[in-house]
Amino acid sequence: MTTTPTSQLPADHPLTSGLTSESALLNQYRGSRTSAGAPASPERRPVWFMRQAGRSLPEYRELREGTSMLDSCLNPDMASEITLQPVRRHDVDAAIFFSDIVIPLRLAGVGVEIKPGVGPVLDAPVRTAADVAALPELDDAAFAPITEAIQRTTAELGSTPLIGFAGAPFTLAAYMVEGRPSRDHLGPRAMMHTDPQTWNALAAWAADVSGRFMRAQLMAGASAAQLFDSWAGSLGRADYQRHVLPHSTAALSHVSGLSGPDGVSAPLVHFGTGTSEILDLLKTAGADVVGVDYRLNLSEATRRLGPETPLQGNIDPAFLTADWSVLEAHVREVIAAGSGAAGHVLNLGHGVPPETDPAVLTRVVELIHSIDP
Amino acid sequence: MTTTPTSQLPADHPLTSGLTSESALLNQYRGSRTSAGAPASPERRPVWFMRQAGRSLPEYRELREGTSMLDSCLNPDMASEITLQPVRRHDVDAAIFFSDIVIPLRLAGVGVEIKPGVGPVLDAPVRTAADVAALPELDDAAFAPITEAIQRTTAELGSTPLIGFAGAPFTLAAYMVEGRPSRDHLGPRAMMHTDPQTWNALAAWAADVSGRFMRAQLMAGASAAQLFDSWAGSLGRADYQRHVLPHSTAALSHVSGLSGPDGVSAPLVHFGTGTSEILDLLKTAGADVVGVDYRLNLSEATRRLGPETPLQGNIDPAFLTADWSVLEAHVREVIAAGSGAAGHVLNLGHGVPPETDPAVLTRVVELIHSIDP
Repeated sequence: MTTTPTSQLPADHPLTSGLTSESALLNQYRGSRTSAGAPASPERRPVWFMRQAGRSLPEYRELREGTSMLDSCLNPDMASEITLQPVRRHDVDAAIFFSDIVIPLRLAGVGVEIKPGVGPVLDAPVRTAADVAALPELDDAAFAPITEAIQRTTAELGSTPLIGFAGAPFTLAAYMVEGRPSRDHLGPRAMMHTDPQTWNALAAWAADVSGRFMRAQLMAGASAAQLFDSWAGSLGRADYQRHVLPHSTAALSHVSGLSGPDGVSAPLVHFGTGTSEILDLLKTAGADVVGVDYRLNLSEATRRLGPETPLQGNIDPAFLTADWSVLEAHVREVIAAGSGAAGHVLNLGHGVPPETDPAVLTRVVELIHSIDP
Repeated sequence: MTTTPTSQLPADHPLTSGLTSESALLNQYRGSRTSAGAPASPERRPVWFMRQAGRSLPEYRELREGTSMLDSCLNPDMASEITLQPVRRHDVDAAIFFSDIVIPLRLAGVGVEIKPGVGPVLDAPVRTAADVAALPELDDAAFAPITEAIQRTTAELGSTPLIGFAGAPFTLAAYMVEGRPSRDHLGPRAMMHTDPQTWNALAAWAADVSGRFMRAQLMAGASAAQLFDSWAGSLGRADYQRHVLPHSTAALSHVSGLSGPDGVSAPLVHFGTGTSEILDLLKTAGADVVGVDYRLNLSEATRRLGPETPLQGNIDPAFLTADWSVLEAHVREVIAAGSGAAGHVLNLGHGVPPETDPAVLTRVVELIHSIDP
């Protein structure tokens, strides 16, 4: 194999064109743009969609028929196939590993199920010091189906990067304290003040399983990882900083500096909804890239985070049903707003709504790829 | 009746002491503090709690037994009694009229019910131009039970002010489009972009019934009014400004400059959860006072709104189960953080959780009243 640096190859050389297309996403995650805001080399503008693997795709609904959510996540064949489906259909620039936030709980032996139309429901909520002390240890051997699914997926993906996935400690702990989804997350938020020792023990447990879940995915071949803190937006800044940030930092420390398949350290993305007021803290936790939800203009995100911080986001899913001209204008606005950051990977500013027409997502990808970077 | 200004009466004169205690809340709402941040006169530090009338009180649960939520709101005896219960029990400085955000819909003839454990559920969602065109007209005569309930309540309250209540157009429209509560409010947010004309017609209808509902309460004897935009936090700033602010402004215009029972224009409070990024727009809509949810420190709210803006809030309900020393320290922090604003009425930064121990709320009121203003 030649060791000629790709920058010295002619632009139409297969290796060059392959690399500039295939590593575009990782380059953006690594902040490869020049200081002028232009990319270092002409690459495809990268995009993927949170929840791209899932309910909006008929092929997903067909495959999942008769299999529970968590069982499908732990079946390497199914998890791999579901991860690949949107890459084939939409030509997105990354796969996101199909899994669920509560999978590390299930792997540790915590009784949990996803109830259709409800969400994660635990056999018993975790509310006391004794409940937390009784939480099982997660054995690394339990990650076997994850490792197998990741390996099958990366083998089929070729050079398209696979992004690993885990729920952040607060979000995990929120489900554990409430025992089910809730609107206000008052249970975990109250525990921080009512019994901070138990809160810290619980969040530390969640950080450990979350971090090791991401680590298992990277060790098996994922190229990047995203920590999802779905409910962090329910916290004020002081509470996040004092009671959550240390645990999210601990979760990310499990994967910090870990090399991806390309031999360079795998970029880490941190995302939560309603987190405009704590974006800087999401980065402080140890993230390379900050995911921005649909509420905040990306130029304002760059003002808050500094131009050196690569961003991910933030097409508003509320535009996916609009006239194409309205949606196109919105996508172009998002691209313009993100142009001040050292890197920008297009994404939605929230997950794909289940009722989304997949053809619209495909067209959005085509549009993004058609716009010169 | 003497016309001697109260400022010329001796401090222990019944009229004087009565006024300084009884109008403390309205004075704070009107920004009566001197520029140094101290109150113009020594008054009790005012406090009330969102959802103080309701599920946390055993006397409420007993009274409501067997009566549906909306029926109890429209029964003048019950609505009045429920409004008075927390004033008697907690010695709070204001009553908030017991009602529900969807009452104007019910009064207009829209089929809606509150399903226990779910929330407002409409017979049919309102999603098309035809649905909006078919919405009934609200007749002012329909407000009769509201007027009667307010009159009974103010007669018993004496000089304790009664605060009127309405849901903001976005929140009302969100329930109408979804037909029930939702997490992301994707339906109404999508309608703004997919069919802006229908959105504007729907929101204008909601603004009309909401504004007239507040107006009916003020005309019947309420001393102030609060517009609740429960779901405004799901909107980005640009969407709020373009698609919601004009309608909230229209709702508030129905009560702008309207005199309260004291002959001075009734203060208008505007509150929404998760609205840290749009606090200034809540004020722009025509509010005198901005309610701040528990997420944002009040000193930061004052930085954003200017010291001339009176604030309401924002004790975090998550502290209500904590050790008393922790809760007390939190309440004192909130008071300190609010001291830079021209006025400050203590409140929770969200509604009273149903499982709250009422004795804790009473103790919080005692604490607040014990701290020198």
